[in-house]
Amino acid sequence: MAHEAALLLQRIEALAAISEEPDMLVRRSLTPAMRQAQNLVAGWFQDAGLAVREDALGNLIGRWEGATPNAGVFVLGSHLDTVRDAGKYDGPLGVLTALAVAERLRAADQHLPFALEILAFTDEEGLRFHTSYLGSSAMAGVFQLEWLAVTDAQGISVAEALRAYGGNPAAVGSCARLAEEVRGYCEVHIEQGPVLEACGLPVGVVTGIAGQDRVTVTFLGTPGHAGTVPMALRHDALCAAAEWILAVEGQAWAPEGCVATVGQVEVRPGASNVIPGEVSLSLDLRHQEDALRRQAVEDLQMEAAAIGARRGVGVRWQPVQSSPAVPCNPNLIDALARAIAECGYPLCKLASGAGHDAAPLSALTSVAMLFVRCAGGVSHNPAESVTASDVGIAIEVLHRFVLGQTMDASA
Amino acid sequence: MAHEAALLLQRIEALAAISEEPDMLVRRSLTPAMRQAQNLVAGWFQDAGLAVREDALGNLIGRWEGATPNAGVFVLGSHLDTVRDAGKYDGPLGVLTALAVAERLRAADQHLPFALEILAFTDEEGLRFHTSYLGSSAMAGVFQLEWLAVTDAQGISVAEALRAYGGNPAAVGSCARLAEEVRGYCEVHIEQGPVLEACGLPVGVVTGIAGQDRVTVTFLGTPGHAGTVPMALRHDALCAAAEWILAVEGQAWAPEGCVATVGQVEVRPGASNVIPGEVSLSLDLRHQEDALRRQAVEDLQMEAAAIGARRGVGVRWQPVQSSPAVPCNPNLIDALARAIAECGYPLCKLASGAGHDAAPLSALTSVAMLFVRCAGGVSHNPAESVTASDVGIAIEVLHRFVLGQTMDASA
Repeated sequence: MAHEAALLLQRIEALAAISEEPDMLVRRSLTPAMRQAQNLVAGWFQDAGLAVREDALGNLIGRWEGATPNAGVFVLGSHLDTVRDAGKYDGPLGVLTALAVAERLRAADQHLPFALEILAFTDEEGLRFHTSYLGSSAMAGVFQLEWLAVTDAQGISVAEALRAYGGNPAAVGSCARLAEEVRGYCEVHIEQGPVLEACGLPVGVVTGIAGQDRVTVTFLGTPGHAGTVPMALRHDALCAAAEWILAVEGQAWAPEGCVATVGQVEVRPGASNVIPGEVSLSLDLRHQEDALRRQAVEDLQMEAAAIGARRGVGVRWQPVQSSPAVPCNPNLIDALARAIAECGYPLCKLASGAGHDAAPLSALTSVAMLFVRCAGGVSHNPAESVTASDVGIAIEVLHRFVLGQTMDASA
Repeated sequence: MAHEAALLLQRIEALAAISEEPDMLVRRSLTPAMRQAQNLVAGWFQDAGLAVREDALGNLIGRWEGATPNAGVFVLGSHLDTVRDAGKYDGPLGVLTALAVAERLRAADQHLPFALEILAFTDEEGLRFHTSYLGSSAMAGVFQLEWLAVTDAQGISVAEALRAYGGNPAAVGSCARLAEEVRGYCEVHIEQGPVLEACGLPVGVVTGIAGQDRVTVTFLGTPGHAGTVPMALRHDALCAAAEWILAVEGQAWAPEGCVATVGQVEVRPGASNVIPGEVSLSLDLRHQEDALRRQAVEDLQMEAAAIGARRGVGVRWQPVQSSPAVPCNPNLIDALARAIAECGYPLCKLASGAGHDAAPLSALTSVAMLFVRCAGGVSHNPAESVTASDVGIAIEVLHRFVLGQTMDASA
């Protein structure tokens, strides 16, 4: 087990060395760096005896055939693309724990009744195109064809990037699987939060993925000379925005477990001696329960309107995205819980505030996730870190979970 | 009077047509566009019978000789350079009202005891080199020779641009005047604020130019995943910044007449799904009284520290600039007030929150300023606007003011 974990961490390092920039890890989808990373993983898949292919959207698939024909496929996986100045584990850990399980099956020359597929999904992070879950959406049959026209900062469309990568935008439909062929999906991922560390546990079972609303909020005030317009006559868009940012911070406490973040601010004209005339903010609000999430967003919209009215500042409210919460499958949760118990650890159930490929895949099949403790809850940051011991436990739990599916299949 | 105002507004339009860019007014110092504008004004000066020259720093000077030799010179003027996407009146109005007064003197074949000079100063706005008041500083003898090495965005230094313009950087010292030769300076300028409009008055007398502090304030929090870090565990740099922005807005009320503005915000990493780890803000704070201004800045620095300490967020405080207030001369203020009273208008005294060439010139001589009402207080914007009627009144007031100096000179 220690050897497997060490090998996995070596692989993590090898992947982390493949970046678009020399001084930080950034590996956007469908780039030459991603091609290099994906080829490296494809080689590991091949060495493990998996049948390797890429589908039309660039998803990398390693397949370990089942003993019984037409008994369907159980899917494990995660993604290889990263955010900017990323950590090493977010994504690769899920692909490589799945690979470690496949290597155990091969070492035991063991074929399960059903086939096992390991997926490295195209573009989970959305850094390049500001899209989400391109690859897993295609596999789930929920890919929107208009996403092919979305362009990156250089004006390159998803379709163009995909073609250059070796994919086939015209055949995206071929990526979709039939629900009756897929038995389920399980993803191992770092927690990206501090709960497991606080509980002193190596792994935990995810109950579901929080729903998420994204909104662009713009305050429209009156620009003016910073030296000549008296304070009483100002309609400062930034002051209105500041008041609302604090309302967002306060609001988030209302429904327990809600998180709300303003991560982007654009001030126009943005000169030190000009009163801000227009300020655009991003709102990201997440909660496990859709009704509470929707209520929190509505409350914040009303708060923005009230602040604007009080200050003589206009408010533009532009919803960007609204994703419902995705519950994990109770049977798969129980199966993960059993595997953890067999390994001798107490059960910690926790919600995922971050989105994952499991979310779009829930449109296709039952999904489950196993979280692995990460130091300080830090993620999307070079300081992201997991221990070899926790990695070993995650491999063991996932292996037992997969074998458990075998028993369920034969039951 | 109506004819003079109409002519002045025609000249304003002719100047506004000379721009570096076709779709907006932008006329930086020492550029071909400025050469064209300055030549146009020089022609008007010549037509008005003024002796015209340019000094080593490119200041345009039109001189109407006095009746008495060695009785010194009274200076009127402003600037012809603009900000980007500028209005038409900021600067040219001061040069052209002075020209209108000279034209009255010529029409009456009237020589004052002292000489009158009309100055169009090089580079008031600082758009090109991010410097301030190059021309008026040279005339006042406070030009710093290291400014000659400052470069614009294309890497062209002030010295190079000046040479290309026809000036002589080696002779900047020759621009400086002797204090005993200069009797005073008066500048007509649009108010750039809403006070005169609110009072229903065409013109007002400036009591002084506010002192100004500029500071860059940075809040250093802890970045994190917007979906996974519970609200209670966050150290969000933007929330700290928002609290301080509202403190700046509130603080500004404390000393009457103080204005304080946050005009720039930079959020890092600046992604919608990442808790802000670092936020930099610009502070611009101005007040007529230096002691009150310094106290207000100190209070805001303490407030930033208190907010940071309460939130576990670091604070970096970087002073950028600190300019003392410049009081206008009481005798000149009284003289402007008399001229306004003669024209039948009540007196409005107001401070200038914006800086002007009068500020560096105060190192050389007594200074005064006459503000002209502008629509909505809007300036540094194409919507900048003054009425012909107000322009006529400004010419009349300035003429009476200049004649009043004559009486003071003979008294």
